[in-house]
Amino acid sequence: MPTDPFRDLREELCRGHRRLAEAGLVALSFGNASGIDRTAGVVLIKPSGIACDALEPDMLVPVALETGRPLDSRYRPSSDTPTHLVLYRRYPELGGIVHTHSPQASAWAQARLSIPPLGTTHADHFAGEVPVTRALRRHEVAGAYELETGHVIVETLERLRLHPLDMPAVLVASHGPFVWGASVTEAVDNAIALEIVAAMAADTLRLRPQARSVGRWLLERHHSRKHGPDAYYGQRPSTPT
Amino acid sequence: MPTDPFRDLREELCRGHRRLAEAGLVALSFGNASGIDRTAGVVLIKPSGIACDALEPDMLVPVALETGRPLDSRYRPSSDTPTHLVLYRRYPELGGIVHTHSPQASAWAQARLSIPPLGTTHADHFAGEVPVTRALRRHEVAGAYELETGHVIVETLERLRLHPLDMPAVLVASHGPFVWGASVTEAVDNAIALEIVAAMAADTLRLRPQARSVGRWLLERHHSRKHGPDAYYGQRPSTPT
Amino acid sequence: MPTDPFRDLREELCRGHRRLAEAGLVALSFGNASGIDRTAGVVLIKPSGIACDALEPDMLVPVALETGRPLDSRYRPSSDTPTHLVLYRRYPELGGIVHTHSPQASAWAQARLSIPPLGTTHADHFAGEVPVTRALRRHEVAGAYELETGHVIVETLERLRLHPLDMPAVLVASHGPFVWGASVTEAVDNAIALEIVAAMAADTLRLRPQARSVGRWLLERHHSRKHGPDAYYGQRPSTPT
Amino acid sequence: MPTDPFRDLREELCRGHRRLAEAGLVALSFGNASGIDRTAGVVLIKPSGIACDALEPDMLVPVALETGRPLDSRYRPSSDTPTHLVLYRRYPELGGIVHTHSPQASAWAQARLSIPPLGTTHADHFAGEVPVTRALRRHEVAGAYELETGHVIVETLERLRLHPLDMPAVLVASHGPFVWGASVTEAVDNAIALEIVAAMAADTLRLRPQARSVGRWLLERHHSRKHGPDAYYGQRPSTPT
Repeated sequence: MPTDPFRDLREELCRGHRRLAEAGLVALSFGNASGIDRTAGVVLIKPSGIACDALEPDMLVPVALETGRPLDSRYRPSSDTPTHLVLYRRYPELGGIVHTHSPQASAWAQARLSIPPLGTTHADHFAGEVPVTRALRRHEVAGAYELETGHVIVETLERLRLHPLDMPAVLVASHGPFVWGASVTEAVDNAIALEIVAAMAADTLRLRPQARSVGRWLLERHHSRKHGPDAYYGQRPSTPT
Repeated sequence: MPTDPFRDLREELCRGHRRLAEAGLVALSFGNASGIDRTAGVVLIKPSGIACDALEPDMLVPVALETGRPLDSRYRPSSDTPTHLVLYRRYPELGGIVHTHSPQASAWAQARLSIPPLGTTHADHFAGEVPVTRALRRHEVAGAYELETGHVIVETLERLRLHPLDMPAVLVASHGPFVWGASVTEAVDNAIALEIVAAMAADTLRLRPQARSVGRWLLERHHSRKHGPDAYYGQRPSTPT
Repeated sequence: MPTDPFRDLREELCRGHRRLAEAGLVALSFGNASGIDRTAGVVLIKPSGIACDALEPDMLVPVALETGRPLDSRYRPSSDTPTHLVLYRRYPELGGIVHTHSPQASAWAQARLSIPPLGTTHADHFAGEVPVTRALRRHEVAGAYELETGHVIVETLERLRLHPLDMPAVLVASHGPFVWGASVTEAVDNAIALEIVAAMAADTLRLRPQARSVGRWLLERHHSRKHGPDAYYGQRPSTPT
Repeated sequence: MPTDPFRDLREELCRGHRRLAEAGLVALSFGNASGIDRTAGVVLIKPSGIACDALEPDMLVPVALETGRPLDSRYRPSSDTPTHLVLYRRYPELGGIVHTHSPQASAWAQARLSIPPLGTTHADHFAGEVPVTRALRRHEVAGAYELETGHVIVETLERLRLHPLDMPAVLVASHGPFVWGASVTEAVDNAIALEIVAAMAADTLRLRPQARSVGRWLLERHHSRKHGPDAYYGQRPSTPT
């Protein structure tokens, strides 16, 4: 029996799906995560309609990055697969993508409002306001809906000239967040951070409707503490973990 | 000892009650679920005043669909049994019914407001706004109160010309939701989805009081992804699970 | 070694404290429950400053109903003991009392607002609005503060001509709820119900600020389903449990 | 192998970090706690970027109180270490410090509002409103940011003439709370209390925007029940625990 070349990725995805369920970001079978093996040109994604906490490594569906075709036929891939593929093709930096209907981020998406950066929790993960897409047009919904969802995410990032690892989340209007990262684990971390930031921003504005975004310098300082070339947050790569 | 013809339904109902408790939809002894064996003409329902997480399969009370009479006398059936029976008699499509006082859906019921469809999470489960009934009249409350509760639910669906599997929930004014499905498990899924959708709609309107319902085409697209004749969500029936 | 005459009450109180912690009604060492043995004239109450989930049956402090004196000196009784004793002395119907700083009920107490009966969840437990006391006066706070807290609860019930088992909770202004019942378990149930009802009422008013209380007939119908002379909710006393 | 002189402090810190995670005050790797051995002049603090629930006693980083230098090089100390050191140097009363991005307290910090004392839960822990700092200035953020964060906390306490054990928390504007106590355990208790108090105050003001702070006498009575020279809350030191 040949060893599975995607064993590690499958396990990272299972852990990720479990964390999404435990953090209250997904309920029922809402939500899905995927990861990519760039060398093989293969995306692994959650099967459609399966609950996150019922997922086993072998159930993840391998799909060809270029054609979108499933590489085996045991399970149907998530119906959102075309959205994931658009993003992987457009942004070679992405290693993992998470889609949820997490309650707080989805409330912002349903309100069709971007999440303003009101504090350092936001700045630690997102280099500015988390944008919401325009509403999909009638013909986009009627046509290749999930593909168009990917296009409108890319359109949003490009219109705002955002690098996808500086702004690892977009809210799809009337729908919910798509979130990503350089790895599956980072994408899951960002999805959890987004939900916290969305709740905190809503609560801040309830306390003080005119609360303003943090200054550009605080935003940059916090983001670069974690993500800049001189990052000094976390452990050095050589640190035992 | 003869085998119990309702063994599977009893176990499905116990699992369902446990899921309702774990999802935070019921506390104390609020709430009850039932399932029906159409061939036998028997409804199984939670005994009155028992906590969901204390329920054992043998404690579910069998009740005759036509007469409403309990088929054994060990436990009293839920005081809401007449409401369930009205719905089963009127809608042969129903396989399970759930009644909860889940906090978010009940807040809408207490506000006597229908829940508007503000996003795809809603559209995935409910084909339009989740309606609230009119208030019960004084004589209805004084008379066969639980029976009248069933009647006002049917009245609401008929007034709005709703098919019960397209709109598997109604909010009873000043009370709480009744939710159903083609099976007990589906009814429980819908009750969980309703609570999420109720919270998300409230949060959306707090962020943006003038938020509007999603377009009819998005509503239909999402609902038919899961429920239409060309549904492409979930696994095919032949898929291993 | 003589058997402990309060063994059952001690265990019921431990279970009760654990349920209060699990339901999120108490954190740190906020909150306390007590129970009474009327024949012995002894109240058992939580020791001061001990966390609910660290409580063992032997740690509960026996206190004489009439004198308020602890009957052993291993632990100091809760600093709120004088409040409990005022209520037990005034109302022979009470078997258990619970005091919490549960977040939602305390928000109403801090807002110095009674909780209006907006639906059947409320009506199932409380026969009308849950009242808030007047603020304590400066000399009451400076004097026998905990005793005065008991007096202002009694004053509130008497001013509104409420029977303590019809209205088993009062919100102490700027403080939090005191809740009771015919037994410790009933008091704990009522404390859990109060927190749910407080949250639901707040959410209802956020959805619809002008939401009105339920009609007197619905209130009475629901309350008497559970508590009236013709109660038909729950199991008959002779039912196996 | 020599015994570790910080063994007890390491274990108290691990327990503290675990409690912070369990109470929902920290997610991902947000937040950190430290404790001090005044005799040795050594602060132990969480390593940077490690999740609270993944922490082992040996991973805590010892840092010299005076120089701020780590005493071993296995892990990098939290990037917030300079903030902790400023506070330990200025206030010899402190035994432990906790920094979190707990959602409710951070919402107040993001709104740049102090938390008013609206009830006795607040008064039990904080002798007045929990203050928010001024916003950091651009050059402070660009310079020794974490050190300046410590300075602005001290500046806030001094401006308001607050003793750090009477007011064991300050909200850093647009950031989140720093909380402390005479010991690590007390600091963790205060962080948990602060989050509860922040949520309760927000909910109170939603119910009644004009809700007023409690009178000075109630504030003092409650605070001194627990913390004054004649404190009568909790067990006497000689009490078995």
